[in-house]
This record gives sequence, C-alpha cells and structure tokens, in this order.
Amino acid sequence: MDAPSRQIVLASLPEGRLTTASFRLEDVPRPKPAEGEVLLRALYITLDASNRAYMQGATYAAALKAGDVMYGRALAEVVESRADGFAPGELVFAESGWRDWAVMPARVLQKRPRTQPLSHLLSVYGISGLTAYFGLIEVGRLKAGDTVVISAAGGAVGTIAGQIARLGGARVVGIAGGAQKCARLTGELGYHLALDHRTGNLRDQLREACPAGIDLYFDNVGGEILETCLPQMVVGGRIACCGSVSTYDGPSPAAGPRGVPGLLVTRRLTMSGFLVTDFNARRERALADLRGWVESGALKVPEHITEGLETLPAALVGLLAGENFGKRMVKVG
Amino acid sequence: MDAPSRQIVLASLPEGRLTTASFRLEDVPRPKPAEGEVLLRALYITLDASNRAYMQGATYAAALKAGDVMYGRALAEVVESRADGFAPGELVFAESGWRDWAVMPARVLQKRPRTQPLSHLLSVYGISGLTAYFGLIEVGRLKAGDTVVISAAGGAVGTIAGQIARLGGARVVGIAGGAQKCARLTGELGYHLALDHRTGNLRDQLREACPAGIDLYFDNVGGEILETCLPQMVVGGRIACCGSVSTYDGPSPAAGPRGVPGLLVTRRLTMSGFLVTDFNARRERALADLRGWVESGALKVPEHITEGLETLPAALVGLLAGENFGKRMVKVG
Repeated sequence: MDAPSRQIVLASLPEGRLTTASFRLEDVPRPKPAEGEVLLRALYITLDASNRAYMQGATYAAALKAGDVMYGRALAEVVESRADGFAPGELVFAESGWRDWAVMPARVLQKRPRTQPLSHLLSVYGISGLTAYFGLIEVGRLKAGDTVVISAAGGAVGTIAGQIARLGGARVVGIAGGAQKCARLTGELGYHLALDHRTGNLRDQLREACPAGIDLYFDNVGGEILETCLPQMVVGGRIACCGSVSTYDGPSPAAGPRGVPGLLVTRRLTMSGFLVTDFNARRERALADLRGWVESGALKVPEHITEGLETLPAALVGLLAGENFGKRMVKVG
Repeated sequence: MDAPSRQIVLASLPEGRLTTASFRLEDVPRPKPAEGEVLLRALYITLDASNRAYMQGATYAAALKAGDVMYGRALAEVVESRADGFAPGELVFAESGWRDWAVMPARVLQKRPRTQPLSHLLSVYGISGLTAYFGLIEVGRLKAGDTVVISAAGGAVGTIAGQIARLGGARVVGIAGGAQKCARLTGELGYHLALDHRTGNLRDQLREACPAGIDLYFDNVGGEILETCLPQMVVGGRIACCGSVSTYDGPSPAAGPRGVPGLLVTRRLTMSGFLVTDFNARRERALADLRGWVESGALKVPEHITEGLETLPAALVGLLAGENFGKRMVKVG
C-alpha cells in the first residue's frame, strides 16, 4: 500500500467572507519524485492574507479554482531527491501547498540554512521581515525624524516594520484592531503610540498622534484606513503600498479611497506599490541587518504558531479576522 | 466721479454642475493703489479646470465663498505703481481675479517679458506648458521608447504634453472626448493615436492601442479613465498625477478608482502627484527648451481665446464640459 499523506483542498470558492467550510481535508497517497524532482515533508506552512486574494482572481499569483490543493508556502525538509544539488535533510522554502508531503521540481526550490528557531525563516528572515525592511527603507525612504504610521501594525509585517522604523530614528505610530494588540505594540515592541481603529474615531486619534502630519505611511490594508491617512499626509509625503488586506476577504476589489488622485496632486504625494522580490539583489544585506538586530535583542519577533495541518483553514480565517499578533504559521512536521 | 471697472462675482456656490447662473457681473469704482501696491489692467485672464475645484473647499488655494470676486490668474499691465521696481507698461502675472482692474501688493506679482504673441505667456510658457514639461520629464521620467498615454489630451496641458512626449521619442496615445478633437490630436499635433472616450469602449481601445501595456500615464482627469488605465499599466509603470478634472465639477471628491492600492502593489506602480511650482528651480531650463521647440516649429501651441470680461463664466463652464482644444483664455484688455 502507498504511504499516506494529507492535503487540504479549496472545495469551493467563497462568495463573501472566507470560512472553514470552503476547505476539505483529504487523505491521499504520498507522491513519488520523478527525475529532477524532490520529495518534501513540510515542517511549517506560513499564512499570509494574500492567500485569500488568490481566490479573487489572478493577483500576485495565478487564481485559485475550486478543487485545487490550497496554495501555501512552506519551510520543508528534503526526504528523497532525484535532482542534482539536493540531498535528504536539507531545508528548502517552497510553494508546496497545504499538504504534509509534496513533490516539487528542484528548480523552484530555495535552500534555507538550519537557523534556530526554524520559524524565524518564515517570519523575520522570510517574506514578512524583508517586506518590512525594504518597504520602509527602499520604497518609503525612511529617515530619522520621520513620523511613520503603520497599519495592521500587529500583523506579521507591521510588528517588524514598527521596530525597524524606530531603530531608524522615526517616531512610530501603529494602527491595529483592539486594545490588547495596541498595548502589546507599545509595551513589547517599542511603538511610540498605537491607535485602535475599532473605537471608530481614527481620524481624530491620528490628528492628535501626528499633529505635524504623517511623513511616511506604510500601508498594509488599503480601504478606509488609507482614506483616513491620506488627508493627514504632509506635503511631499510617501506612501509605501505593501498590501490591501481590507479588500481581500470579499468578492472583488472595492472602489479606491477618496482623495486619489486629488490629494496626491495637491499634497504632491507619492504612492508606490512594491513586492519584496523587487529587492532580491539587496537581500543578503537586509538579512545581515535583521540578524544583527535580532541577535542583539533590538528586534523582537512575535510569532503565532498552531500545530497540525488540520488547523490551517481556521488559521487563515483567523488571520483575515485580525486575530493574530505577529507572524502566523502552522507547524505540520 | 471714480473711473469705472467691472468684476465678476461668484454669486452662489454651485450645488451640482457649474452654470453661468452662479456668476454676477458688477460695475465698481476702479481701485487706487496704496504704498507698496500697483494698479493693474488685465490683458488676458486664463481659465483652468482647477478654478472649479476651489469651489469645493480648500485644495490648491483657499476655498471660494459666495460673494467673492471669482478667483483667476491674469497677464496684466502695470498702469500705476507705488512700489519700487515696478513701472507703468511692464507686464506681470497675477492672481488678480476676474476683473478689468485690480490693485495688488507688488510682492505677489511675477514679471513677464513682452513675448509675442502675449497669449503664449499663459499657454506654452505658462503653467500649462511647464506642467506638461515637468510632469513628463521629472515626475514621469519620460524615456525614448515609452508608450505614453495622456488623458484630456485636447486640453491646455495635454496638447503640449503629447508633443513633448513625441519629441522625447515616445509612442504617444491621447484620450479625448469627441471624434473632432481626436482628429486634431493626430492630424495637427503628432499624437500617434487618439482614443475617443465618449464612444464608451475605452478599455478595449486602450488594449488595442497599447498591446504591450502603458509605461507612463499622464493623468489629467482621475476617476473612471484612471481606473481604466490602471490595469493596463506595465509592471513598474509610472503615473504622473497632474489633476483630477473628472471630480471637480460636482459637490465633493468621489471615491477613488478601483485598483488603488491593490494594483499599485501587484504591478509595483508609482503614482506621484505634483504641482508645477515644485520645479521652480528648473524653470528657466524648461522655458528655454519650450522656446526652442516653438521657434523651430516642432511644438504647436493650440489656444482657444474669447474676448470680453463678460465671456469668462461661459468660458469656464465650457472648459469643464470639454469644449476647448488647447489653452483657454479670455482677452479682456
């Protein structure tokens, strides 16, 4: 009999907000690698809000269809290799989906060192940490003395970004949902201020928090919070567009914020979208900086880890509902 | 008896689209300059779509209120001077409003040379020409081989911008309202293609006109046309946000385009707003370039001039309705 494996399939595309009812856990035979392929055992599967966006159509990646194994990125271990340059026991980062075992062509795998804890490879040394770093430094042109506002400040990117902004000499204001997250941002991560958008008076809170205006807005959410920040930008302000979480968990992208493009003109604002991969050439330098800060204790790495492949659907639904603080992932291996 | 003058007052703020009923022509005594002031006789008053935006609240300039003399910029002649450095007969550019005669403090006046024709000082050598120049070259980082799309291509800025883009080696696609304007863009101004947005299938027209995507979009209008261009931008494309005419002639700014910020992220687009005054330091260089092109015949200067102070209200209403081709102004002196 074939060795067993499990996978989670997107049983149906969600019509409104995503629920766990959209997913189905399946037992399948463990796949076998062909020439040039590698058999992987997933150790950690990382969750990103953008996973939901793939259900809306082609965005960052190709669109997901009902019946597909759910898209997901994993830190995985090579168990069997039929490809040159890969040996059992090596660690790789792979878009291997929501499954225990996967066969992947060797050419799409990215090797990773066996850093401890392994989870850091998916948080601070992974896409989240590098996104925070490049978004602030390259796209946002962070400088000392800036007033920086970061939305989804309690998320995987925001928890790192706020600390990098502070290390860069900025005054850092976070926006997050809920008093508890706000308390952690200022208490544990050194945010100068944290504003709770759920209390409903964000405009006034921002005005009080940033009396001279916002120099740099690191936007993880788009939508209403972007609309609220826009009129409070200084002349010549920069908006680093990292993501648009507020628009992912619905049928399709909504209308953009009021003030675009009007306020961009009158305030001479620049909004720049970016992907972390745009900065691959400077990746090693960024990782060295991040490692230095983590090892010295200057940069804390909040992670939110659950165990078991079967917890993935609830983890993604919870991520979209804003339940997590820091990088969310599932330990599967 | 005092010498006479005439002025046009904004009698009431428009509730929907602007009509001439919002204005009132008044006979008033000619003003007299005090110490440090200058008496001006307006020669040409320039019309800009942004004049309408001032009725929505503070934007580029302070908001207009009912009862105010209508805001306007003029090329004017000094008739009497009680200020050092200004002599009768000199030409100045002034925010002197919709009136025949005005008294202004000397410090807010900008001297202008007596170039012929004088109207060029308000079109190609004025805000419109410099806006086209800096918007393409500095903000849009125009380069040879770019596919450039320009909206409101038949307007004061668009008629100049399209020609500058062509002179810079770009393939230039204009968007304008009406077949007649489109014919003039390609026939007289050297646009490679002109698309009529009034025929209602702009998305398909753009796709056919720009099969490899839009590298640089010079946006004069915002709104639906911006929304249509956004998904057709290349990865890393640039959007120079010059104005948002589509949103001016109504009660207040509408929701922004779908795709902001989502498409900015996935396509790594940059949207930058600008004002022509941001580039004052490079103004002389720009004027020298523009003068060279005009004198060699490489750059044509469409102007739409009516005569008489009393034609100003209809001229602004017509401008907002897209009636003009090229720079619209009224000869009053």
